[in-house]
Parts: sequence; C-alpha cells; structure tokens
Amino acid sequence: MSESDETSPLSDLTIAVLGGTGPQGRGLARRFATAGLDVVLGSRDASRAASTAETLAAVGRVRGASNAEAAAAGDIVLVVVPWDGHAELLASLVDVLADKVVVDCVNPLGFDKQGAYALPVEQGSATQQAAAILTRSRVVGAFHNVSAVLLEDPEVERVDTDVLVLGDDREATDLVQALADVVPGMRGLFGGRLRNAHQVEAFTANLISVNRRYKAHAGLRVTDV
Amino acid sequence: MSESDETSPLSDLTIAVLGGTGPQGRGLARRFATAGLDVVLGSRDASRAASTAETLAAVGRVRGASNAEAAAAGDIVLVVVPWDGHAELLASLVDVLADKVVVDCVNPLGFDKQGAYALPVEQGSATQQAAAILTRSRVVGAFHNVSAVLLEDPEVERVDTDVLVLGDDREATDLVQALADVVPGMRGLFGGRLRNAHQVEAFTANLISVNRRYKAHAGLRVTDV
Repeated sequence: MSESDETSPLSDLTIAVLGGTGPQGRGLARRFATAGLDVVLGSRDASRAASTAETLAAVGRVRGASNAEAAAAGDIVLVVVPWDGHAELLASLVDVLADKVVVDCVNPLGFDKQGAYALPVEQGSATQQAAAILTRSRVVGAFHNVSAVLLEDPEVERVDTDVLVLGDDREATDLVQALADVVPGMRGLFGGRLRNAHQVEAFTANLISVNRRYKAHAGLRVTDV
Repeated sequence: MSESDETSPLSDLTIAVLGGTGPQGRGLARRFATAGLDVVLGSRDASRAASTAETLAAVGRVRGASNAEAAAAGDIVLVVVPWDGHAELLASLVDVLADKVVVDCVNPLGFDKQGAYALPVEQGSATQQAAAILTRSRVVGAFHNVSAVLLEDPEVERVDTDVLVLGDDREATDLVQALADVVPGMRGLFGGRLRNAHQVEAFTANLISVNRRYKAHAGLRVTDV
C-alpha cells in the first residue's frame, strides 16, 4: 500500500499517536508515515513531540503537538502512553476523543529481576479501562505485541508479525486491521472482543521472556489464517 | 524423532494424560504415541480410558487406566481435565505426583453466546493452582493453545504451532519443550515463568474468536526465534 493507493480506507485519515515520543510510539509513527499516512505525534511536551517528529521528517508526513492537539487532529488516535498515567490522560481527553476510533496499545506490566509480569487492572485490561473512561469513543485494542526495536529500525523493511485487534465495534476493528495492514509484513487480525483484551496485553510479558531466553525480538503469527 | 532416536531425553519415559478421553487429551496422546512414546490415558472411568486407548492402538503404545493409576505410571504427567474438577483431582493425587513433572494444559474458560472468555482464578492461573496444590511436584504449563481438531485428525501430519512452556524449573521446562518437539510441526518454546501462565491459558479464548471469524483452527507461532 502507498499514498497513491486509492482503495485504502485510510488514505484521507490522520493518525494521531499519543505518547508518540517513546520507542513504541515513535516506531509506529515511523511505519505509518512510511506507508504514506499523515501522522501527528502527541506528547505532554509539544516541543518534545516536535523534535521527535523532525527525526522522522525524512520518512513521511509527521508533525508534533501536545497530546490534546494530537487527539483533536487525529481521525484514528493511538494511545501509546505509559500505563502509569493512562487513566489520567484519557480522562482529560473525553470530549476531544468523542466519536473517534481510539486504539489502546498499552501493556500494564511490572518489572523485577525475574522479568516482566502482568499488573492487575480493575477494569480487566488497559483497553477496557479506556472504554470505561471514553464512553463516547470507539475503543479498540491493538499493537500490543509489536517489538519497538523492530519498528524503529530503519534497516528492518518488514515487521513480521500479526496484530491482534480487539473490540466490540466491527467497523472500528476492521479499520484498525486495515491500519496494521499498511505496514509491510504486518497483518491485522480480529482477535476477540474487549473482554478478551487482557491476555493480549499481558502476553507481552511472555514475549519479553522469550526475548531474554532466545535473544530475539519476538512477534506473533496466528497459523491457519 | 522416532522410537529409535537414541538422543531423545524422552525415549524411556512414559507419558500419562489425565483426562485423556476428551478431545485434547486424545489428540495429544495420539501425537505422542505416533512419535513412539509410551502413553497411558487416564480417566475417572478406567474402562472408558481403555476403550479410548483401543481406538489409538494402531498408532502406537497407548493403554488406558484410572487417573490415579495413570498418574502413578507416568514419568511426565499431563493434566488435560476440565477446569471444573481440576483442583479436586489434583488434590487427590498429591502423593502419587510427588517429584514428577506435571504439565498443566487446562484453560479456565467460560462460554456464552458471544464466545469464550477467561475465568478468574484465585491463584492466577490453572498452572499456578496446580503448583499450589502439588507442592512436591515439578509443575509446568504447556499445550494450552493447540487445536484439538488438528491433533485428532489423522490426515494432519504436521501440527503447525509453537507450544509455549511456562515454569520456574529449567530442567522441567526443557523436558516439556523436548516433548512438544517430538510432534512434527510443533515446537516447544520457553514462554516465561509460572506467574505469566494466565495469559497463555486465557489466550485460547482469543484463538476461539479467531477460529469463529476466520473459520480456522488457529495456532501460534513466535517470530524471530
């Protein structure tokens, strides 16, 4: 897919990445911009977002903004912020995110000397927490298990992984699957309803264990699909 | 790998499958017997286990027994019983399973008209429940995400999936990885510690969603390993 691909449901849409200055946010922004999409990076600090956007200027159309401005500008808004601060940020954006497709990419994980582990979440998962806060938005979960190292590496042309897209709104999950599909090697697959988001988020802890044991940047493929 | 493969750490071992008359237990028994391993199917009803074992006589060495007899006979004991009854069965086998490698394969799932969903487990996961009950055993979690339909289908020669093996005992997880490796197409991978078993069990709900949406028998592959 490219800028000139007239069949894409995404070609006229702006993709916002809240928390876009971290490795995962930067990496996703790089890939979407490379595919010809308009990207707005959001950060608590708009000038930091602008600096990060500059580093991506060579790959495509990326600009920086505050999280609130990015949320307002995005047709699809990815949430890639740290778990600590997730609820607070979303609560501040309830109105601006109304009616938008919001893609939660956050993995609530803890870390200790034995590695990563899933944190309990009152609502079940980060995605469900987002849905509980953003009651007027169309909340989807996706991009949980994608290696930031691979996303950010300009030498990596194909990101060989499936993206499980979780949600209860078929039109929204279809759109987010199409978004994953713009990245070479990546494939968006419907992965279940919001109530089954927790284990996809938590599975990132297992991939971190795999990465440690096998010195890999592990991703997931679903077979027979 | 075959019976004559002298390098296998498994060739002299008996594999017990508790709950071996259900689709998952039968399917795993079929694959291990096909690979030349000695298999004992356990069931609450020994005569039912014997009948099921007879249906597998053509593929290899499979015999039936009560769950307690199978547990006693097995060097590696797979637990493939329904979640409802899991704790009770294991509590009755604490002594007979002492010092053995016990592989919990149970997915605590509920089902309704919207599909499958993960059930909460007080100990965190079925595998951790097993470890909490079987304090003198070497408890590992594995084989959670493998399609019973594929395992049972004699036309399917390769079961194209990775088996994530969870546990805190390196020797035990290595052995169970080797057990997965005897099945053509299947690959055992270390997938993290016991505390990260929940999401692997629960992930089966997502694969059930995938199967519904795509009319598939989905499995998992970990990329870059």
